[in-house]
Amino acid sequence: MKKLWGGRFTKSAEEWVDEFGASISFDQELVLEDIEGSIAHVEMLSKTGILSVAEAEKIKNGLLTLKKQAEKDELSFSVKLEDIHLNLESKLTDLIGPVGGKLHTGRSRNDQVATDMHLYLRKQVKQIIQLLNELQSSLLEKAEHHIETVMPGYTHLQRAQPISFAHHLMAYFWMFERDKQRYQENVTRINVSPLGAGALAGTTFPIDRSYSADLLGFDSIYENSMDAVSDRDFILEFLSTSSILMMHLSRFSEEIILWSSQEFKFIELDDSFSTGSSIMPQKKNPDMAELIRGKTGRVYGNLMGLLTVLKGLPLAYNKDMQEDKEGMFDTVKTVVGSLRIFAGMIQTMKVNEQGMENATKNDFSNATELADYLSEKGMPFREAHEVVGKLVLYCVNKKCYLQDLSITELQAASSLFEQDIYHVLNPRTAVERRNSAGGTGFTQIKQAIEKAKLCVWEKEEVK
Amino acid sequence: MKKLWGGRFTKSAEEWVDEFGASISFDQELVLEDIEGSIAHVEMLSKTGILSVAEAEKIKNGLLTLKKQAEKDELSFSVKLEDIHLNLESKLTDLIGPVGGKLHTGRSRNDQVATDMHLYLRKQVKQIIQLLNELQSSLLEKAEHHIETVMPGYTHLQRAQPISFAHHLMAYFWMFERDKQRYQENVTRINVSPLGAGALAGTTFPIDRSYSADLLGFDSIYENSMDAVSDRDFILEFLSTSSILMMHLSRFSEEIILWSSQEFKFIELDDSFSTGSSIMPQKKNPDMAELIRGKTGRVYGNLMGLLTVLKGLPLAYNKDMQEDKEGMFDTVKTVVGSLRIFAGMIQTMKVNEQGMENATKNDFSNATELADYLSEKGMPFREAHEVVGKLVLYCVNKKCYLQDLSITELQAASSLFEQDIYHVLNPRTAVERRNSAGGTGFTQIKQAIEKAKLCVWEKEEVK
Amino acid sequence: MKKLWGGRFTKSAEEWVDEFGASISFDQELVLEDIEGSIAHVEMLSKTGILSVAEAEKIKNGLLTLKKQAEKDELSFSVKLEDIHLNLESKLTDLIGPVGGKLHTGRSRNDQVATDMHLYLRKQVKQIIQLLNELQSSLLEKAEHHIETVMPGYTHLQRAQPISFAHHLMAYFWMFERDKQRYQENVTRINVSPLGAGALAGTTFPIDRSYSADLLGFDSIYENSMDAVSDRDFILEFLSTSSILMMHLSRFSEEIILWSSQEFKFIELDDSFSTGSSIMPQKKNPDMAELIRGKTGRVYGNLMGLLTVLKGLPLAYNKDMQEDKEGMFDTVKTVVGSLRIFAGMIQTMKVNEQGMENATKNDFSNATELADYLSEKGMPFREAHEVVGKLVLYCVNKKCYLQDLSITELQAASSLFEQDIYHVLNPRTAVERRNSAGGTGFTQIKQAIEKAKLCVWEKEEVK
Amino acid sequence: MKKLWGGRFTKSAEEWVDEFGASISFDQELVLEDIEGSIAHVEMLSKTGILSVAEAEKIKNGLLTLKKQAEKDELSFSVKLEDIHLNLESKLTDLIGPVGGKLHTGRSRNDQVATDMHLYLRKQVKQIIQLLNELQSSLLEKAEHHIETVMPGYTHLQRAQPISFAHHLMAYFWMFERDKQRYQENVTRINVSPLGAGALAGTTFPIDRSYSADLLGFDSIYENSMDAVSDRDFILEFLSTSSILMMHLSRFSEEIILWSSQEFKFIELDDSFSTGSSIMPQKKNPDMAELIRGKTGRVYGNLMGLLTVLKGLPLAYNKDMQEDKEGMFDTVKTVVGSLRIFAGMIQTMKVNEQGMENATKNDFSNATELADYLSEKGMPFREAHEVVGKLVLYCVNKKCYLQDLSITELQAASSLFEQDIYHVLNPRTAVERRNSAGGTGFTQIKQAIEKAKLCVWEKEEVK
Repeated sequence: MKKLWGGRFTKSAEEWVDEFGASISFDQELVLEDIEGSIAHVEMLSKTGILSVAEAEKIKNGLLTLKKQAEKDELSFSVKLEDIHLNLESKLTDLIGPVGGKLHTGRSRNDQVATDMHLYLRKQVKQIIQLLNELQSSLLEKAEHHIETVMPGYTHLQRAQPISFAHHLMAYFWMFERDKQRYQENVTRINVSPLGAGALAGTTFPIDRSYSADLLGFDSIYENSMDAVSDRDFILEFLSTSSILMMHLSRFSEEIILWSSQEFKFIELDDSFSTGSSIMPQKKNPDMAELIRGKTGRVYGNLMGLLTVLKGLPLAYNKDMQEDKEGMFDTVKTVVGSLRIFAGMIQTMKVNEQGMENATKNDFSNATELADYLSEKGMPFREAHEVVGKLVLYCVNKKCYLQDLSITELQAASSLFEQDIYHVLNPRTAVERRNSAGGTGFTQIKQAIEKAKLCVWEKEEVK
Repeated sequence: MKKLWGGRFTKSAEEWVDEFGASISFDQELVLEDIEGSIAHVEMLSKTGILSVAEAEKIKNGLLTLKKQAEKDELSFSVKLEDIHLNLESKLTDLIGPVGGKLHTGRSRNDQVATDMHLYLRKQVKQIIQLLNELQSSLLEKAEHHIETVMPGYTHLQRAQPISFAHHLMAYFWMFERDKQRYQENVTRINVSPLGAGALAGTTFPIDRSYSADLLGFDSIYENSMDAVSDRDFILEFLSTSSILMMHLSRFSEEIILWSSQEFKFIELDDSFSTGSSIMPQKKNPDMAELIRGKTGRVYGNLMGLLTVLKGLPLAYNKDMQEDKEGMFDTVKTVVGSLRIFAGMIQTMKVNEQGMENATKNDFSNATELADYLSEKGMPFREAHEVVGKLVLYCVNKKCYLQDLSITELQAASSLFEQDIYHVLNPRTAVERRNSAGGTGFTQIKQAIEKAKLCVWEKEEVK
Repeated sequence: MKKLWGGRFTKSAEEWVDEFGASISFDQELVLEDIEGSIAHVEMLSKTGILSVAEAEKIKNGLLTLKKQAEKDELSFSVKLEDIHLNLESKLTDLIGPVGGKLHTGRSRNDQVATDMHLYLRKQVKQIIQLLNELQSSLLEKAEHHIETVMPGYTHLQRAQPISFAHHLMAYFWMFERDKQRYQENVTRINVSPLGAGALAGTTFPIDRSYSADLLGFDSIYENSMDAVSDRDFILEFLSTSSILMMHLSRFSEEIILWSSQEFKFIELDDSFSTGSSIMPQKKNPDMAELIRGKTGRVYGNLMGLLTVLKGLPLAYNKDMQEDKEGMFDTVKTVVGSLRIFAGMIQTMKVNEQGMENATKNDFSNATELADYLSEKGMPFREAHEVVGKLVLYCVNKKCYLQDLSITELQAASSLFEQDIYHVLNPRTAVERRNSAGGTGFTQIKQAIEKAKLCVWEKEEVK
Repeated sequence: MKKLWGGRFTKSAEEWVDEFGASISFDQELVLEDIEGSIAHVEMLSKTGILSVAEAEKIKNGLLTLKKQAEKDELSFSVKLEDIHLNLESKLTDLIGPVGGKLHTGRSRNDQVATDMHLYLRKQVKQIIQLLNELQSSLLEKAEHHIETVMPGYTHLQRAQPISFAHHLMAYFWMFERDKQRYQENVTRINVSPLGAGALAGTTFPIDRSYSADLLGFDSIYENSMDAVSDRDFILEFLSTSSILMMHLSRFSEEIILWSSQEFKFIELDDSFSTGSSIMPQKKNPDMAELIRGKTGRVYGNLMGLLTVLKGLPLAYNKDMQEDKEGMFDTVKTVVGSLRIFAGMIQTMKVNEQGMENATKNDFSNATELADYLSEKGMPFREAHEVVGKLVLYCVNKKCYLQDLSITELQAASSLFEQDIYHVLNPRTAVERRNSAGGTGFTQIKQAIEKAKLCVWEKEEVK
């Protein structure tokens, strides 16, 4: 078949060049968005009188037929026709005759593809927001069950201070809340219509861009036609927001992997979310957590890829920009899959409450309690810190823990110590007493969970 | 001097390890923020009765003295004391005695450094928003002067359709408007107080986090202490928003470089923004535009750097996170410098209006007009496109342009052509007629400029 | 079908988790390498007596049958069986019965997949080296035709000094020569056998790793089994070497795009390597060059992706490492395609020799000649530079070029000027006289081309 | 002071633009290399008769004076003079008068700065190779002491099979060996002279590039002058090689952090390489390992930064390329520091041999032994795997380990089990029996260490 743009050319391009340049192998993902955009466009052409009602009706019916075929996965595409736009246009013309050629009046492939991308990403980002909401729900549920589960809190992967497991989980809740916010802000810039910007300069036809934007559910239209066709900020935002989300998931994954190790034994993942080894039958690998941690790399890579593509490109459309799609599709797939897996993994994991609590007792993570104790009794903090440091060293040499010291030994270090210090040294007390706003104290956590519930919604009220 | 945290250690660290681990060489940039945060903290300690009024007063006065010294650049710091926090605390204690050690009651270096970073970045991002606003003003001014300046619009760096130079400039205006929005959204997540989160779990002291947050002008406090000290999202957002901004500047720079070439000759940069060659005296290099295009790389790199740092880190603080600062400082410096330079470069550049317009006449960028003409007369767009393609080929062989063809020659290609086609072929007409919303038509541009004015503010009303 | 590693598990994994975790959708690319590796493995098991000759023969025949099916693309794979290894093993067992299960004796999936990757990448990198060689041949051929074609040389995209077009092309030749070297060095680290390293620790079977390595054409074996299964350096090297290559191609693409513009008009790309516009029939876009420039982004992204994946991973195999494949496959495809296109694009482009030469005459790119002239006559270079700077300014004001100045005007600037200066000002003379080693002088270029020929080989002598 | 290239300009540049464009704040790092390059250049100018012996002598003496001052850190530089080259030239002229201006004969800043970079990086990469060698020595020494130290080997951070600690350490030895190779290959492309390439096209002076190259110790000269001044491959190679090295260090750091945790307790870092907490006196944080893991990010970022800078730049020099330096300097500093710290950290760490061995006993990491045992007795591997999987499950339910099962219980699972199975189940036996090439068997390790010794050299024989 002759190429649609071939009028000027005297020589047919070789097949392998075609293949290298064609985007149909991946942009067919946009088939429904492309049809949806075309339907709005033709309705606008009809409403403004640019096409006659009959012409428009014919084209729209053709498009609806194609839509049905697409939904049933009955359309097949050709590399010769480069991309989804020319493929669909050719099918339309086959279906309804030359009048199909009038669909392209007052638009260009440049604004058409931009429209498709906006429609596609709006739908996907809304789904991602929903999945984040569900993951938050899973976290909330798990946290509510574990308010009183005590575990070591870590800094530098060293036990630092005892905390509530719920508190630890809720730290991730708030990360995902910020992710949700960022995606929602992303939507405000996705939901802007480029349709009708033409190749770069607008069009001489008396189109009504607001009308087609309304039909497509866009909040507004691009104010400048060159910007409309050159802008890929909304994809970069999506990729960077997704990179931050994946970073959060990679941190959570790292912890799940640590907690699942024989050394920590804090949790046991459900069999559905772990796998065995072909050669070591005893193993139960936290594969899904590892894989998600690993998939962080591809999302970072997709971000870096598109940033590189756009660097230094003059206005307006350049063919380089065809490279905006695959990284976006891949990121959508990765993020959607990771969020789904994560929610299930959290919901089904078993928590080893006893193991967690034991771990708070066989070390020095109650040392801060001692320092605070002295500090509250008036010793300058730095001095208290030093006293406790020496006591820890004393214990290390004596091979015991702080709670094992006699009151005489303690008082030898500072006369401020009294009998109530043994209560203070209990990890559970330590958690309870950290009752400052946002702290790990049980009362605080309960309040925090209530506050958090206001951030999630029931499945029905899709935003 | 003995290390403040040295109580537990029996052996002194070697100097070069100290130096490798110390952050004072760069985190001294935070000196004022650190003092500011400490003042708010001590006021809170006093208000809640954790410290006596007299103690608090003494500490505050000490801090104010340090602040004055810092502002006069009279403080010198020591690697032995690792970071800005310990350096200042040591100076404070030197100044006011052991009571200085009480300043650290109810906080940790982990929430302290986070507070400093939030304060620092809030100030810098607000400055950047202001600079973006100024750059937008420069663009608006330039655009208003060039509404009727006609130039070729490009796609694929091939002349595509004639446009107004103002339209081209305004495309960047809207990019910067989105950048401004993103920075403003970034501020909402920067302006949250981590102070009082402690090492990771909150504190046993009855602190009032909202009070110190208010004193520091924060909108709210972190809801979870572990999140408060582990979160660097706000810096990542800053880096990705800055990467997108630099990408915009790199595109604009590329165009400025092209336009300054002997081949394009569309603009001449002011001598202040270009430099000569040590060996080629005739050259006037668009150095600033090239440098800014190049600096895109370091901002992308800073983003990738911090994303890498945070990938897979377990909660809460890890020393890796010390690596969050230099890339942030460097990005602030790069963005601030680039925006300043750009505004000046735009304001002072000379526009070669005649050269631009001439360029629209000696080529085929009016070919679309022909196609639209036929299309408006009822020929399906695809067919029109093909007719014009053949006419262009005809001209190429005849070594002339479309406007040079006789009406007979045109009518041989399509009988729809009439005498009015010659008016249509004039580039200025082409611009004028693209009057669709957001298009390059003169009327459209005027409206767009008026709308754009609502987005910028006078210097006084700093947001 | 039951999962092969399912013995330990009481609960079947849900399908969607399976799909997320499975690699068969992409690692089937390794089907032939996997069979090849298995054949060598089974031959080794036979040679060492670990398997009986009969068992080995049966397995080998089964593998050969699978190989034939694979080559005819007759194999279909199942997500249930996770990856290419388990899929093939299952097919083998279906084919030859339980003895198929003995193939996995003395190896693990960890060394098996590593072996596949080494085999795969060795083949691909060798192909890439060949394609680089062909691109270099195209450049040499073009350069030989254009030794005497004079064009402006640019710095800062400003015309600097006239050069030979051959000289410009040959700059790329040497970049590709370095790329070739890097790929060849890459091969030395690819061509090392991990087979027999087991899961991580070696095996208790008396295998002969050198024997299977020899059969597979490897130069050596990994010295450490943990390194053997954890190492992905060879892929990172491939990705970084490919990133540098794509950077070179992006620079060349940028120049091809510039040279194809109406402003430069230095070359015309063949129709096969350029495309038209759906809306602007006159356009001939350098699509392939743009696309290759854009594809630089995905290769950079793939590099950054894998660097991220591997950061901070403890030894030995982790599931994260499954993410090593897609970026590698994608990079192979991108590099192979880009090199093919580029060679064709260079071979078929038309060079506008007259346009190039004209461009050297209508500007000040001969200014250095003047400075060198004065310098050779004894004036310190910096002084000469200043004299010429003033003459250029004089010309700018007078709207003429240096060659248009009378000898009197020149001598007013410096008494050192004599009549021979007009010969020196001729661009062709300027090129000719830059006869320092590696310079653009025609004699130099001829020598350089002869030297370059020693670096390329005829198609037959595949390295 | 007037700008050296200011002849053409009528207007002085504002100070802040100067500062933005100037590189002297960082390129002063190249002061010695710049002088060294100039000395070689002037000797060449003298040898070829371009300068008189007297002139050359005067210039050389001036340069030697500057060198002494630089070594004593007595030179101060000015932003007004942009970069190190103009700063030094100005100082030279101050010192010896206008003849200083002749130094620049036959070269340009473009080849001059490239020469400086080549000289600088050659020195630094050689130092890095030496440091890698020293780190390898530390590893070898440690490994030799721990050949018989048994520990769990991990995959997926799950205990997989017992290994020797020496084997684990030696895995890193071979990674660093590859790093060394890559740096050495990098040197071959660093050690090429661009000097005399001029601005881009060579020079009209009869210079002898090979002579100055020899004086500077370069192996060869660039074959093409445009390539010579545009090439930054050697820096990209350095950055990617360093990224891979940092990735290795990040993996090793991760393990050191894990091993130092209270959960693993496999090693204790020396106090010199760990730090305490300002608020938790009991902590001993593996700060250096964390910091190095974190610094991986900045090196990745520097790589990504320069790749971005170079993408799409037309030949030859563009001001963007000034951005090549800071990332390179920063990477040198990071890599050198990290390697130094690492060697010390490895040398001084205490290994908890008993803890490591205990960890191999309280789990199922000897399960593979069982499977191999059955396999060696003729059971197909897949079947053996399944039998063992069921036995593990049986133990889990019975809360015991495999070695605790009676022979009757074992034989119930398979009649192939005999009394010798208990020897096989001993972790130490498991290690010993993995005697395949490159495996963890003690004999293998001893051989591997001897082989490894051939790769390191004594301090004296600096390569």
